Amino acid sequence: MDVTEARRRFAAARVARLATIGPRGPRIVPITFAVVGDRIVTAVDHKPKTSRRLARLDDVRADPRVAILVDHWDDDDWTTLWWVRADGVAEIVTSGPRFDEAVAALVARYPQYAERPPAGPVIDVTVTRWRAWTAAESP
Amino acid sequence: MDVTEARRRFAAARVARLATIGPRGPRIVPITFAVVGDRIVTAVDHKPKTSRRLARLDDVRADPRVAILVDHWDDDDWTTLWWVRADGVAEIVTSGPRFDEAVAALVARYPQYAERPPAGPVIDVTVTRWRAWTAAESP
Repeated sequence: MDVTEARRRFAAARVARLATIGPRGPRIVPITFAVVGDRIVTAVDHKPKTSRRLARLDDVRADPRVAILVDHWDDDDWTTLWWVRADGVAEIVTSGPRFDEAVAALVARYPQYAERPPAGPVIDVTVTRWRAWTAAESP
Repeated sequence: MDVTEARRRFAAARVARLATIGPRGPRIVPITFAVVGDRIVTAVDHKPKTSRRLARLDDVRADPRVAILVDHWDDDDWTTLWWVRADGVAEIVTSGPRFDEAVAALVARYPQYAERPPAGPVIDVTVTRWRAWTAAESP
């Protein structure tokens, strides 16, 4: 799978998993996301409690390196399995044009956000490396 | 969701995502796994190339802290979403009773391994903390 195909499959997925480095070790969480140009954006929506100081935001502030995974699982047919991972550097964005653009991209992708756009902050990831694997191309 | 329910949902899942800390940042990969007592085991199967020196094994050797995520995604109904994360300390096991027990547990869970059990090594994770989230219990 070449980088163009890896990016295409990644961008088409509905859910991804974000890994950050926390004070006690790695952290993973499922995320909604959008690919905006060369960046991947995700946002804190309305789930967290009062403070919005989500652990993943603290992680990124302390160490901006993140990895985001999209994969295809099929319990019955393992020959169809694949995954694409984007490694990158994350930035927390709380307002301004990049914030607005990210929220608009998320609202455009997920009907659930139409009524209630994510409040943010936005985690804006500049991808430094794409990695991909497919069962079909493996020995 | 209490810890018993979190463990139950985790153990019933067919695929999980493993995060490790690599030299360039976090790494995530989808994994097959089994819960064996208080431990989570996963194994390198036959996909990797010649050396079996998978990056995730190098990561664990350098920093044994890992996180493993199981989640439920539903594109249409976000009120049903949940995830369970196990934080733990991993050990690489290449032979002996713990290796055999792990491989047997994986073979028992996945019919695909019956003909061709995973060659290993096994990554054997002692869970230090369970974390869970459900949309249903969120404000």
